[in-house]
Amino acid sequence: MAGNSFGQLFRITTFGESHGPAVGVVVDGCPPGLAISEADIQPELDRRKPGQSKITTPRKESDTIHIQSGVFKGKTTGTPILLITYNKDANPADYEAMKDIYRPSHADYTYDIKYGIRDWRGSGRASARETLARVAAGAIAKKYLFERFGTQCMSYVEQVGKIKSNISLDKVTLQAIDKSIVRCPDKAVADKMIKLIEEVKKDGDSIGGIVKGYIKNPPPGLGEPVFDKFPADLGKAMLSINAVKGFEFGSGFEGVIKRGSEHNDIFTSSKGKISKKSNNAGGTLGGITTGDTIDFRVAFKPVATISKVQDTVTRSGKAIKLAAAGRHDPCVLPRAVPIVDAMAALVLMDHYLRHKAQNM
Amino acid sequence: MAGNSFGQLFRITTFGESHGPAVGVVVDGCPPGLAISEADIQPELDRRKPGQSKITTPRKESDTIHIQSGVFKGKTTGTPILLITYNKDANPADYEAMKDIYRPSHADYTYDIKYGIRDWRGSGRASARETLARVAAGAIAKKYLFERFGTQCMSYVEQVGKIKSNISLDKVTLQAIDKSIVRCPDKAVADKMIKLIEEVKKDGDSIGGIVKGYIKNPPPGLGEPVFDKFPADLGKAMLSINAVKGFEFGSGFEGVIKRGSEHNDIFTSSKGKISKKSNNAGGTLGGITTGDTIDFRVAFKPVATISKVQDTVTRSGKAIKLAAAGRHDPCVLPRAVPIVDAMAALVLMDHYLRHKAQNM
Amino acid sequence: MAGNSFGQLFRITTFGESHGPAVGVVVDGCPPGLAISEADIQPELDRRKPGQSKITTPRKESDTIHIQSGVFKGKTTGTPILLITYNKDANPADYEAMKDIYRPSHADYTYDIKYGIRDWRGSGRASARETLARVAAGAIAKKYLFERFGTQCMSYVEQVGKIKSNISLDKVTLQAIDKSIVRCPDKAVADKMIKLIEEVKKDGDSIGGIVKGYIKNPPPGLGEPVFDKFPADLGKAMLSINAVKGFEFGSGFEGVIKRGSEHNDIFTSSKGKISKKSNNAGGTLGGITTGDTIDFRVAFKPVATISKVQDTVTRSGKAIKLAAAGRHDPCVLPRAVPIVDAMAALVLMDHYLRHKAQNM
Amino acid sequence: MAGNSFGQLFRITTFGESHGPAVGVVVDGCPPGLAISEADIQPELDRRKPGQSKITTPRKESDTIHIQSGVFKGKTTGTPILLITYNKDANPADYEAMKDIYRPSHADYTYDIKYGIRDWRGSGRASARETLARVAAGAIAKKYLFERFGTQCMSYVEQVGKIKSNISLDKVTLQAIDKSIVRCPDKAVADKMIKLIEEVKKDGDSIGGIVKGYIKNPPPGLGEPVFDKFPADLGKAMLSINAVKGFEFGSGFEGVIKRGSEHNDIFTSSKGKISKKSNNAGGTLGGITTGDTIDFRVAFKPVATISKVQDTVTRSGKAIKLAAAGRHDPCVLPRAVPIVDAMAALVLMDHYLRHKAQNM
Repeated sequence: MAGNSFGQLFRITTFGESHGPAVGVVVDGCPPGLAISEADIQPELDRRKPGQSKITTPRKESDTIHIQSGVFKGKTTGTPILLITYNKDANPADYEAMKDIYRPSHADYTYDIKYGIRDWRGSGRASARETLARVAAGAIAKKYLFERFGTQCMSYVEQVGKIKSNISLDKVTLQAIDKSIVRCPDKAVADKMIKLIEEVKKDGDSIGGIVKGYIKNPPPGLGEPVFDKFPADLGKAMLSINAVKGFEFGSGFEGVIKRGSEHNDIFTSSKGKISKKSNNAGGTLGGITTGDTIDFRVAFKPVATISKVQDTVTRSGKAIKLAAAGRHDPCVLPRAVPIVDAMAALVLMDHYLRHKAQNM
Repeated sequence: MAGNSFGQLFRITTFGESHGPAVGVVVDGCPPGLAISEADIQPELDRRKPGQSKITTPRKESDTIHIQSGVFKGKTTGTPILLITYNKDANPADYEAMKDIYRPSHADYTYDIKYGIRDWRGSGRASARETLARVAAGAIAKKYLFERFGTQCMSYVEQVGKIKSNISLDKVTLQAIDKSIVRCPDKAVADKMIKLIEEVKKDGDSIGGIVKGYIKNPPPGLGEPVFDKFPADLGKAMLSINAVKGFEFGSGFEGVIKRGSEHNDIFTSSKGKISKKSNNAGGTLGGITTGDTIDFRVAFKPVATISKVQDTVTRSGKAIKLAAAGRHDPCVLPRAVPIVDAMAALVLMDHYLRHKAQNM
Repeated sequence: MAGNSFGQLFRITTFGESHGPAVGVVVDGCPPGLAISEADIQPELDRRKPGQSKITTPRKESDTIHIQSGVFKGKTTGTPILLITYNKDANPADYEAMKDIYRPSHADYTYDIKYGIRDWRGSGRASARETLARVAAGAIAKKYLFERFGTQCMSYVEQVGKIKSNISLDKVTLQAIDKSIVRCPDKAVADKMIKLIEEVKKDGDSIGGIVKGYIKNPPPGLGEPVFDKFPADLGKAMLSINAVKGFEFGSGFEGVIKRGSEHNDIFTSSKGKISKKSNNAGGTLGGITTGDTIDFRVAFKPVATISKVQDTVTRSGKAIKLAAAGRHDPCVLPRAVPIVDAMAALVLMDHYLRHKAQNM
Repeated sequence: MAGNSFGQLFRITTFGESHGPAVGVVVDGCPPGLAISEADIQPELDRRKPGQSKITTPRKESDTIHIQSGVFKGKTTGTPILLITYNKDANPADYEAMKDIYRPSHADYTYDIKYGIRDWRGSGRASARETLARVAAGAIAKKYLFERFGTQCMSYVEQVGKIKSNISLDKVTLQAIDKSIVRCPDKAVADKMIKLIEEVKKDGDSIGGIVKGYIKNPPPGLGEPVFDKFPADLGKAMLSINAVKGFEFGSGFEGVIKRGSEHNDIFTSSKGKISKKSNNAGGTLGGITTGDTIDFRVAFKPVATISKVQDTVTRSGKAIKLAAAGRHDPCVLPRAVPIVDAMAALVLMDHYLRHKAQNM
């Protein structure tokens, strides 16, 4: 209710501040009997962790995950799973100077309005550091879905600034994505993206971009009619990620210029098996998954923290000049990829359990 | 849980099928003491109702709303409010022929997959007729927010097909929106939109578009950190509307090409009052409202129901030709405007109560 | 959240005031494919309705139920089911005189404290008239559970005032319960109860009692560990019924004097089938159903509304004499039986779906 | 949803197994600005911890609590608070022998039925060790309520086996309760209780009892009508505690023999202030707090774990003799007192926030 939980039946609750002692998550509702260990989760965290390449923040965190409950003899028991990481490279002192300053386009201002108090150590709870908890929880959902249905949640960086890839879906593989430090499987375009990010970094600035996401082999029938349509919950999941400004699926914003007769995905059948001739729908009809690949796009703004000098004000309204001291990413897109994957898996897992409850 | 409720503290639960006896909503959690009557709700329903102009479906429904509980001597009592409309122009017979046919890009197929049973009378629960219940509930939220904070939720049709308005916010008024049958306050552009819709209608086809929404004078401090950020819940609300394929707020998808130094909204202050020099953020920071105008855009695909002949299949996979008999809108955008307004008001109202619970 | 919903996956939301236009319920989450019609629901309402015998209130209500959504061609479709009853014998005028008076042990006082406004027509929402909505919803759950598992939720009046039955479980049948106007299957004791109630009625007074409840053939494995133990949710369900002051299950309050070695239910087995030698547990272990009969007891205080003259005060604190004009039950126990059954069925149904989601 | 969370707006989620690495809780929804530190929480845990006297289990756990998030510079920030305890005296080996044995009246059997897998180390999640997390969370609620409203949640052991205290409420103080190792403030009776427990312990047996609880100075207006009545949620909270078999409030089971004219609490007023001449209601009317003291009673069965030899069966149904090796309490009542207090505080706190959301 206070916004730190996600999902109804596969429900996660995250906790922890950027420079507090720990960040983690309780996963409640995981079916019993799933083989899980830290080794299943750590690789996903490593994809998200800071300091992994020259184009990410230099903050050094191993983000080592510990399972503290809910798993017995290597298997889930149906009880809540605590996943926790202890912060190592926390430098609250870096932020002491900023405790009375409102950084432009940051949550400092609104946290003060809302709560009248604020943990100013590296944005506290508003920091994207919280997302490691989502990635950890998502790793469990991903494993369950892949083992049970062969479902894969994957995404890549499609665009950085104006540099855009038009790679076709069949050439996108997890291997190709992760081979690139910018997580774009289109090698030529990736090189340009990296160059742009390095340039931006040198300027002490930041740049935005777009993540393209896919869910392959989703179970059909997932999503609830009316309010909890699958794309509505998927959209909410994406829009809850730090720096996201937009979400579209299937034909998205571009589809609005089409006529119904062009846009409709025509049903066809072969040997009694019904399929569609196109997928403008993006894998759902009436908010319910068809079993076709779900595709979507997520827009990330350039992150607010930059080291360029900016004008701003203090809590009391005094004008000052600010040059951020903290360590930051010039472009969050490469590290956002595992977060997008995790959120997609969490939405799918939750809707799978909801569907099962009423209908199977 | 089965997807028919929205909101946590100002919680609505809708019910009813397109061609069943009634459609309505229970509103639970409305603060006591609000003066409300059918006369406050009906005008919003009239903005949504079918048959209101030459560019909407010819189905004739008065959509007369009845308050059946929760209001005493003209005021809310804090108990659940039942709002109900009895369907008049329900013609299930129109649909008898379609009970075994999967209409392209319709929910027929997925409802069958999900439930194994389906009310085939005009799409049953999957019909946009359900949205009248949202509009009715939203009217209560709108009234509360306006009386208490002067908040206004308003939206207009910004784009139909490729025809787009660039009208500036200060020229957009509710009066100007409603004077236009296409609900675009930009007269010259509106005329072109109407012409396009008439053309599409003549072809037995449909066309998509974009609704631009605003929330003026929102209370500051609304939205919860992490998962229930204000734009995440607003986005979910919009993505739950029939035919919606995308949502963005503030700088949206276009913002991704900017650098942080351009995109950041610089804080400034005058006489101790802090404000921002721009609003790329779209009225929230860290997912929490700043008090600035919230602006967003919602993409609607061309509706699936068209009278043009289409190829499709039956439940058993037999190929057939289909020409829809039911009455439909060539373009849902004009009637979508009050739905967008209602959903925005419902999100705001819910977050206001949530904020109040923990923080005021 | 505002207290008008019950259940998480089989979720009901009730609405309506005692002397308002209608009372009803939305049932959300019912599995699709259940054959249901008004004829399945009405008999349960008839067991609860006023005026059914000489020992109940003379208010005349047919309590005719209407299904307005969620059922198509006689079967549930998985979408929300609206059940509604229109009030006929509503006499708000009877209550006009009481609008400023706080009736002793009534909710008048606390509704005023809580909401600052109150529907004084026959207690409005605080009236036990609301429970008809629960009985209607419960009838659906009962039917599902009986058809699927042979589960039966049944209860009877065990005690009225000091008059108590010690009938053994195997002699209790639904037929025997309903043959008695006081709903006690123990004929000799029932006659004494009726006599006592008639006496109390003549005095313009009221009397309390105890309902004994059973759930036969419950599915095993239901109930969640820790907070949502089956008996915890069952207890909450019972304690939410008007006039209830206590709940116990299995050995209950009497079990506290036993030693563990006497109280423990010894496991035994025959042909590989494990059973227990006793059922002090009352059908659950660790809050989870074993498959054994669940038994419990519910204490009802004497209802507050009596026609005897009482001292009380007005809203402004003025002392006055009060003799209730409205029509009331001298003893609510006979009419409480179907409410207890319904609530038990609703708890079981909800826990069945919850169990299914995570574990089956 | 999987039963590990309690509360809607002041929401706790507990995790951890009896002999796993850690037990703890996430508290979400705590208002910002409350001064809190480990020193506020530890004393409540010390009242619950094992090994505190000769009449409790000899297991040695310091139950040292750590705050890992949500508190900054000594104050709550409105973000989730992680409270965690690391298990020290965990001896899984003690339980190895019992992994295939169903202990009589234990959750071993039902966990196997429900999940098909079970953490057999000291009952895993079904162990009352989980309640330390509730006590820790409850300490925060208690502090808030006391500082804000002077509310006190307190309870004591009223009965052990047949030995019962009739001490009057005005003689019950927290000091008197805690001076007694059996937590009965009635010295003479307490001595008899201790003697009985020692006797039972010598026999390798266990004994039940009753805890009497009070909430003094509760805010008025708390509790929601219909399903979430204050006593319904309080009852659920108590019935969710391990070994509880019954709950009653106010006149409870004894009240059923009274007539309405005796049972009604007559309103009176003095200088405009309205009060009641008695409190048979137990502090609520229509499920909403009046501001009067709330009183209730909770029945605990004798705990199932005893060292006496008992007949039982293995998972495969083989008959065997069992004498429990683990360390256990002969009577849980003294250690249950802080759990009852904590749960009462959690219910009150949650209902306070819920009331505030809609009504203040």
